[in-house]
Amino acid sequence: MRDVREVFAPDSARAAVLYGPGDLRVEDRPLRPLGPDDVLVTVDAVGVCGSDMHYFTSGRNGRNELRRPTVLGHEASGVISAKGPAVAMDVGTRVAVEPAVGCGSCPTCRSGRYNLCPVGTCLGSPPTDGTFAEHIVTTARAVHPLPDAIPLEVGSLVEPLAVAVWAVRRAGVEFGDRVLVTGAGPIGILVAQVARAAGASEVVVTDVNDARLAQALKLGASSVVNTAEQELELTGADRLLECSAHPAALRQGLAALRPAGRAIVVGQAPPSVDGLPLAHLQRWEIELSTAFRSAHAFPTAIALVAEGRVDLAGVLTGRFPLDRAADALRAPGNDPAHLKVVVRPGDSTA
Amino acid sequence: MRDVREVFAPDSARAAVLYGPGDLRVEDRPLRPLGPDDVLVTVDAVGVCGSDMHYFTSGRNGRNELRRPTVLGHEASGVISAKGPAVAMDVGTRVAVEPAVGCGSCPTCRSGRYNLCPVGTCLGSPPTDGTFAEHIVTTARAVHPLPDAIPLEVGSLVEPLAVAVWAVRRAGVEFGDRVLVTGAGPIGILVAQVARAAGASEVVVTDVNDARLAQALKLGASSVVNTAEQELELTGADRLLECSAHPAALRQGLAALRPAGRAIVVGQAPPSVDGLPLAHLQRWEIELSTAFRSAHAFPTAIALVAEGRVDLAGVLTGRFPLDRAADALRAPGNDPAHLKVVVRPGDSTA
Amino acid sequence: MRDVREVFAPDSARAAVLYGPGDLRVEDRPLRPLGPDDVLVTVDAVGVCGSDMHYFTSGRNGRNELRRPTVLGHEASGVISAKGPAVAMDVGTRVAVEPAVGCGSCPTCRSGRYNLCPVGTCLGSPPTDGTFAEHIVTTARAVHPLPDAIPLEVGSLVEPLAVAVWAVRRAGVEFGDRVLVTGAGPIGILVAQVARAAGASEVVVTDVNDARLAQALKLGASSVVNTAEQELELTGADRLLECSAHPAALRQGLAALRPAGRAIVVGQAPPSVDGLPLAHLQRWEIELSTAFRSAHAFPTAIALVAEGRVDLAGVLTGRFPLDRAADALRAPGNDPAHLKVVVRPGDSTA
Amino acid sequence: MRDVREVFAPDSARAAVLYGPGDLRVEDRPLRPLGPDDVLVTVDAVGVCGSDMHYFTSGRNGRNELRRPTVLGHEASGVISAKGPAVAMDVGTRVAVEPAVGCGSCPTCRSGRYNLCPVGTCLGSPPTDGTFAEHIVTTARAVHPLPDAIPLEVGSLVEPLAVAVWAVRRAGVEFGDRVLVTGAGPIGILVAQVARAAGASEVVVTDVNDARLAQALKLGASSVVNTAEQELELTGADRLLECSAHPAALRQGLAALRPAGRAIVVGQAPPSVDGLPLAHLQRWEIELSTAFRSAHAFPTAIALVAEGRVDLAGVLTGRFPLDRAADALRAPGNDPAHLKVVVRPGDSTA
Repeated sequence: MRDVREVFAPDSARAAVLYGPGDLRVEDRPLRPLGPDDVLVTVDAVGVCGSDMHYFTSGRNGRNELRRPTVLGHEASGVISAKGPAVAMDVGTRVAVEPAVGCGSCPTCRSGRYNLCPVGTCLGSPPTDGTFAEHIVTTARAVHPLPDAIPLEVGSLVEPLAVAVWAVRRAGVEFGDRVLVTGAGPIGILVAQVARAAGASEVVVTDVNDARLAQALKLGASSVVNTAEQELELTGADRLLECSAHPAALRQGLAALRPAGRAIVVGQAPPSVDGLPLAHLQRWEIELSTAFRSAHAFPTAIALVAEGRVDLAGVLTGRFPLDRAADALRAPGNDPAHLKVVVRPGDSTA
Repeated sequence: MRDVREVFAPDSARAAVLYGPGDLRVEDRPLRPLGPDDVLVTVDAVGVCGSDMHYFTSGRNGRNELRRPTVLGHEASGVISAKGPAVAMDVGTRVAVEPAVGCGSCPTCRSGRYNLCPVGTCLGSPPTDGTFAEHIVTTARAVHPLPDAIPLEVGSLVEPLAVAVWAVRRAGVEFGDRVLVTGAGPIGILVAQVARAAGASEVVVTDVNDARLAQALKLGASSVVNTAEQELELTGADRLLECSAHPAALRQGLAALRPAGRAIVVGQAPPSVDGLPLAHLQRWEIELSTAFRSAHAFPTAIALVAEGRVDLAGVLTGRFPLDRAADALRAPGNDPAHLKVVVRPGDSTA
Repeated sequence: MRDVREVFAPDSARAAVLYGPGDLRVEDRPLRPLGPDDVLVTVDAVGVCGSDMHYFTSGRNGRNELRRPTVLGHEASGVISAKGPAVAMDVGTRVAVEPAVGCGSCPTCRSGRYNLCPVGTCLGSPPTDGTFAEHIVTTARAVHPLPDAIPLEVGSLVEPLAVAVWAVRRAGVEFGDRVLVTGAGPIGILVAQVARAAGASEVVVTDVNDARLAQALKLGASSVVNTAEQELELTGADRLLECSAHPAALRQGLAALRPAGRAIVVGQAPPSVDGLPLAHLQRWEIELSTAFRSAHAFPTAIALVAEGRVDLAGVLTGRFPLDRAADALRAPGNDPAHLKVVVRPGDSTA
Repeated sequence: MRDVREVFAPDSARAAVLYGPGDLRVEDRPLRPLGPDDVLVTVDAVGVCGSDMHYFTSGRNGRNELRRPTVLGHEASGVISAKGPAVAMDVGTRVAVEPAVGCGSCPTCRSGRYNLCPVGTCLGSPPTDGTFAEHIVTTARAVHPLPDAIPLEVGSLVEPLAVAVWAVRRAGVEFGDRVLVTGAGPIGILVAQVARAAGASEVVVTDVNDARLAQALKLGASSVVNTAEQELELTGADRLLECSAHPAALRQGLAALRPAGRAIVVGQAPPSVDGLPLAHLQRWEIELSTAFRSAHAFPTAIALVAEGRVDLAGVLTGRFPLDRAADALRAPGNDPAHLKVVVRPGDSTA
């Protein structure tokens, strides 16, 4: 008879490792031993994020750079296959994985802003290995049980939804608000849905691509504007959530806010932005802030999906087996109709 | 016997009227009739603000322009000489004048942010006549009684102090905070004093002028840095109050903030700022906001002076009679040792 | 030809005047002359509130007492029939009437909390005449246009809905929250609906009456508990909104809150409450606060109804002509199945 | 030559152990082995708190009860004598000890409110051994370095000062505020000092004992009222900090608050309070909340003392060696002139 412990405590797992721009190799990768607070998660699905695509294409993302081979991926779901002795959750629990949880003891973590921890690591952010893998080991604090109503595949998208939840919280969206979302990519569409779930009366989404705007209209926007074709005439918006990563969209959005309005930059911010209309911001005391990853947002994200208030399945437009992870990383760039594609490490036929 | 009403209800007053860049004329200027809620204030002193100097030099300030002759000045103190029937304060009351109070009925005013009222006017902001005048008429809501401990001359500087109070509130300075103030002009020095009064443990002030930094050190800073001569090595500041109106100082200050720190732009913002380090702001979720004029701040400003927690007299470095208002408007530009100069309309020998 | 001014500027109107407990007389009542900022509203419908019922039954409500004959009623809708010269809205505009708007110039009003104004008056709060009348005169600031989608009759219930909106804001309900509402009367049911609209994941409503609980379940609650029959086993609620006016429900609700939870008393609070579990509140730093009338809430309330996010029509269970106002005031007490009844001054056959 | 490790890693320490009401025995007490994140602190001084006195007198405090022999004491300072391998601080570091830091992983801890952790323990709260001991072992996260300017003896009082800092933060005291503090015991006096340091314009302290009020006036109050002798006539206070643990003082204080004022109960709350004026609280939307222990407050407390903004030495009125710990526990009850007495475990002649 086979020794159970051997089965559930592998010391390596197949994973898609990035060696350099465009050079992704599926190979065996060592796993760290299971600590007392750790879980081994057998990965079901992993969403592809814009940052994965940046690393794959250029070997860098924002100010971070690939310096040694690293497993990408940070939007994962799976099943707990083994656990350390201090873990309360059962083997077999279906979970969504939170990629960054902070050190837990620095002043930033203790104040509740663990997403800003200066010493923490994040799965899939080089040089820390990520989740494009058959199994991963992480701390139990970082996994969140999924109710039966949420298929595992969809559960991989809880991570980007948590980003949207955090951004909407940071924006202080209140019920009755008029909200402007610039950018109709996956994050913009999730932000729009969460803003509706938070009670926004009106959610206007802008983009320069009609296909994306059509999806936004189907998935949360109350109206859309193609700003390549017409001027955005909105005024008096209560909140702006900038999800396009384009400075021009930020400037446009800021101009649409009411006195004392608030803007949150969610999309990956460029290192330097020119032409910030500071005198305008000052005349109206408009707040400009940002959202980075998420904090405390997974339980709410999971509840929103379970209650049917956010359509996460509708955002998922493609699936690839682990062996075709490179194709998954190219898919959204090749076809703008793609919102979110997932890699399914456990499914050789996905 | 002289008719009292004639004395206290003049229909004109001597005032310093700006006709164009550099063209300031002291002449009789009509006063509006006293409404039921109005007071006639016989002006004692009026501080000279940077915005007055901009109008005097160039005929414009920020996005506003002198289009017809206007009385400048908006930092005034004086004595109530007459009042409408609905006014509760007594004739003879010594007051500081709040230049802008809002319409009172728009949603912005009703939410408490009357400083952002889109339809209100502000004394001394063309085309609305200001306070470089022997008498002014304004609404009773806009005047705040001064306790005996505050000389009228000093009372004129309650207005810029209220701006500093509002800025420190907007910044959310908490006791124990480390605060960075960029710019050691009058507003920077008042902001530094108010930050101390609000319990800041440390107030670092930067400028490029040693004379100003010496004054800052005497009047509120716990330490100073001349950023023309040495690098600002501060890190982990809780709050930034940008009082220099220089984008480079803003960029420097933002780099000094801790995770989740907060910056408030108080100094007059340039219309457009380049090189905003947005990716850095996002990585640390730093808040960037602004302060415009002030709201609800006069009573606190007056209390701070009356209790001796802010040294307002020490900021006052020169005085001029109304006839020499033009000299007053040139004085701070000619001599950087000047912090605040006042025009004293009632004092021909000032 | 009839003189138009006569028609639209009546100096009196038929109204239901309370002379003493149970003594309600429909008679002509003088109207104040129209000031420049005033509107004459021809009343369509007026909701009956618990406070009206208290005055009618006992001549008092809370700490206020009927000392001279007064027209009751403060939940009104109608049409602007005449207006002062400073009013921008058109004659013919359909409006909901906000009964109390504050003096506008005291520090409390200027801070945005006009609902707490110490010197303001409130329609229908003795000795100020209310809205059980064919016409009323009020300030234009106090009336809010109704979109076509909202029938006038339903518009009368915008006032209690605004109370619910304000209470939910005061409670700081965030999307994803678990909310407990104690009391399934009209306010409890509206609060439950607004909490859902604000994104609450779960809204538990308690009461001791099964008929009311059935209505709550139909109109917003995700689950209900009859606390006369079974123990409330809820723990970990984020927010409590106490709408029953019963101290026992308050105590029960406080026990159900999570650490750092927040409770808002919305139902009319008794003058004195015994048995407040202060040590429990302290161990968990639970916040206890209250909501009084509403501020800034009418526009949101109107939007919620117009968008179909709150079912206001479903709360309206009876209608009476002005001549039968006394019956309207007795109806909810006689039949607990009544949620809200309205008096319709313009409709002799209602 | 003596083995250094033996000296600095004792497995027991002399400690004052409470066996039952009045039964305090100084004896050897085992120490837990030093974990990787732990420090061994050689205790210099330990303040006596009201809760210690309750346990000593009655065997209980609030809802907690002595069930087996326990070392009391939770206000400690000392020197790090040994440390686990993961600790960055040096042996020899002078520190103040934070008695409760939370589990660090529950949702309450992760949200930043670790003082409310439902599973954490607190030194000196039975059955967890406290600091009336020559040495203690605790986690490095729980000790805060003291600057040279703060004598160790005074450093023991950083803990109650941190409680005051947290309470003032919870109250939201802003500079310029008028603050009422009910109760002139040690916590009341520290709260008054911190409120001043936070910029309060006026701090009124009430008590029923003239000796305590005289100390309050010397140590932070701007005025005092003996409420046994005269009525408290204060109105319009912005904040109330209830430090007396008497419901009558709470009721008095609530009546003194302005509209939208805020009250924080700091003194140990009684299990049940009668006569809460809920209708009054509702009419003015007054907030009632509480403070429990402290969170994130030690660094600020230490800075306030180091900068001389709070006089902590002036609060220390007596010192006792460990052998006389029972006398220390009786001293404040015997002589109301005592504010804080300390036990000095290392000093046989104290």
